[in-house]
Amino acid sequence: MEFNFKLLHKNGLARRGVMQTPHGSIQTPVFMPVGTQGTVKGITPEQLHALNTQIILGNTYHLALRPGDDLVAELGGLHQFNGWDKPILTDSGGFQVFSLAEVRKINDDGARFRSHIDGKLLELTPERAVQIQENLGSDIAMVLDECPPADAPLEKMQDAVRRTILWAKRCRDAHVRKDQVLFAIVQGGINLGVREQCARHLVDLDFPGYALGGFSVGESPELMHAALPDCASFLPENKPRYLMGVGRPQDLLEGVAAGIDMFDCVMPTRNGRNGHAFTHEGQLKLKNAQHRRDPRPVMSDCDCYCCKNFSRAYLHHLFHANEMLGPTLLSIHNIRYYLALMEQAGLAIENGTFGEYRASCLARWSSGI
Amino acid sequence: MEFNFKLLHKNGLARRGVMQTPHGSIQTPVFMPVGTQGTVKGITPEQLHALNTQIILGNTYHLALRPGDDLVAELGGLHQFNGWDKPILTDSGGFQVFSLAEVRKINDDGARFRSHIDGKLLELTPERAVQIQENLGSDIAMVLDECPPADAPLEKMQDAVRRTILWAKRCRDAHVRKDQVLFAIVQGGINLGVREQCARHLVDLDFPGYALGGFSVGESPELMHAALPDCASFLPENKPRYLMGVGRPQDLLEGVAAGIDMFDCVMPTRNGRNGHAFTHEGQLKLKNAQHRRDPRPVMSDCDCYCCKNFSRAYLHHLFHANEMLGPTLLSIHNIRYYLALMEQAGLAIENGTFGEYRASCLARWSSGI
Repeated sequence: MEFNFKLLHKNGLARRGVMQTPHGSIQTPVFMPVGTQGTVKGITPEQLHALNTQIILGNTYHLALRPGDDLVAELGGLHQFNGWDKPILTDSGGFQVFSLAEVRKINDDGARFRSHIDGKLLELTPERAVQIQENLGSDIAMVLDECPPADAPLEKMQDAVRRTILWAKRCRDAHVRKDQVLFAIVQGGINLGVREQCARHLVDLDFPGYALGGFSVGESPELMHAALPDCASFLPENKPRYLMGVGRPQDLLEGVAAGIDMFDCVMPTRNGRNGHAFTHEGQLKLKNAQHRRDPRPVMSDCDCYCCKNFSRAYLHHLFHANEMLGPTLLSIHNIRYYLALMEQAGLAIENGTFGEYRASCLARWSSGI
Repeated sequence: MEFNFKLLHKNGLARRGVMQTPHGSIQTPVFMPVGTQGTVKGITPEQLHALNTQIILGNTYHLALRPGDDLVAELGGLHQFNGWDKPILTDSGGFQVFSLAEVRKINDDGARFRSHIDGKLLELTPERAVQIQENLGSDIAMVLDECPPADAPLEKMQDAVRRTILWAKRCRDAHVRKDQVLFAIVQGGINLGVREQCARHLVDLDFPGYALGGFSVGESPELMHAALPDCASFLPENKPRYLMGVGRPQDLLEGVAAGIDMFDCVMPTRNGRNGHAFTHEGQLKLKNAQHRRDPRPVMSDCDCYCCKNFSRAYLHHLFHANEMLGPTLLSIHNIRYYLALMEQAGLAIENGTFGEYRASCLARWSSGI
């Protein structure tokens, strides 16, 4: 089974495509629910299937620490381990090392850090990042990158880009698994010059897919939206483009408008666990007293299990009673909201009406998600 | 839709029957998963259906306090509220008042107590217990009873039985809802004389079903097992018999052997949330290190979603990573274990082989659940 990506339609910069992977095909644009520790929190694979989930994420950093990538490999890989038989993308672990772990030392060789679980001193190098992901057996692996804050000084940003390119080469050289592809990550913050330089080097290395990293760490949404079309234009037309860790529904639509194909974010599940539901009219906070007697579903035109069976009043009750079912049901709704948004965007691109679709969504959300 | 119960087979004292309710029929013997606060913790109605759940429990005390029975009624009743369209049984709230709330005063009129949620002073009378359950709209409601500890002195036990009979009459007089039946509760601890006296009075009142109460509060399993055949014999042959709040798998089988038809217990879900799985060989503690690399399912011959898709190693990981999916999956398995135990018992009764079935189960469990 060869990996490939076919661009099927364009509408402005927005793209509609299809990716083939060893665990099935993926229609783009696509949102990928995050399964940090080998599970999309509170949701079974069966429920993910019912939501029309095409691909989920696994986190290299978390899984390498616990239960360990060697154990996952021994048990047949991540698909076998977590019961998800469709595609999986794993990140490189770099972002988590820089954001969760206590980093002790970082140089061109890699990063030394202390585990946030037990304080053990560990090392993440490009070669180790690839090894972990080969052990996990994801369909799409990511190179190790250095991810500086968006407001890092130019010199720091340039050095991170230099190291990111260096590590991308080493990851490519270390990668041997044939039923897995390795995507590169473009860094450079919102400095278009640095971004372009980073992209140019990585495109020369001819990876099967490219991600834009560093957009979920600090810059304002407006700056990101403004930078995305140019950043996407630095990437090859015939390869999938992935905007890492972003974001709110409007950020996804802006990404699609700029020519991005793939997205992931913890917001649907994290907000769901906190009682916040995404809707066309903005976020509903189900714990609020106004929902106590409300017999309506979270969203009347949503086809998810939560909206077809339960009222806002019931969800309000579950969250006030600290019942696990509340987080589960709202995570189901929120994931479906994100997936449906991308499905509708794809249809609109096919029909040449993406501009209208985007405008109508943005108008509805203007009440302020 | 008239409520009725048909006794289909007997094998020794063990019974196999079928009950008709406004929300469908129930094959007995039956285990009823507990949905204390309007949800079987961590499990959707869809998942309960897949487990072949026939009826669930709701707790009058909890639901009256939060969200309030008036609110549930306004929203169409408990079935509409929690999305469960099969039968529901509600308890009377008495047991929870005596075990959870701070009881301020109890006399023949009822109980005054403080809510365990907000300390509010409330009252539970026989009439109020019926009103709450009529508001909830369960298929089977229970009378308010007084439930003394099993080791209460004789005089205290006799007074509790006197009050239980008095309250049963008042409940019956207060009960008007036509699509709901009211079961009586026999108290008396393990004193067979007091039990028989209580049963005789209640049987004279001709309730459509009878429960044995007070067996989940303190006495030893052996004393309960020894008392059950006599206690069951005090009840009418042609009415369903319900052993409240009991218990472990072996307690259910002893109950069936004594002629009991219905059971409920929080053990499958509570133990599941704590990482304990019921199996033919005893309870597995999935957090233990021995399961870390074990590719086997919890039980190889179980047909539940958990056992068909996930390994002990994965469950071990989920519990160590504090992932919600662990409690959900193990609750699914444990409920299925209890339901299958009753399904198999029913088949054995039909085939006249219940004695062998019971003996083989007890032998397997002898390693010690």
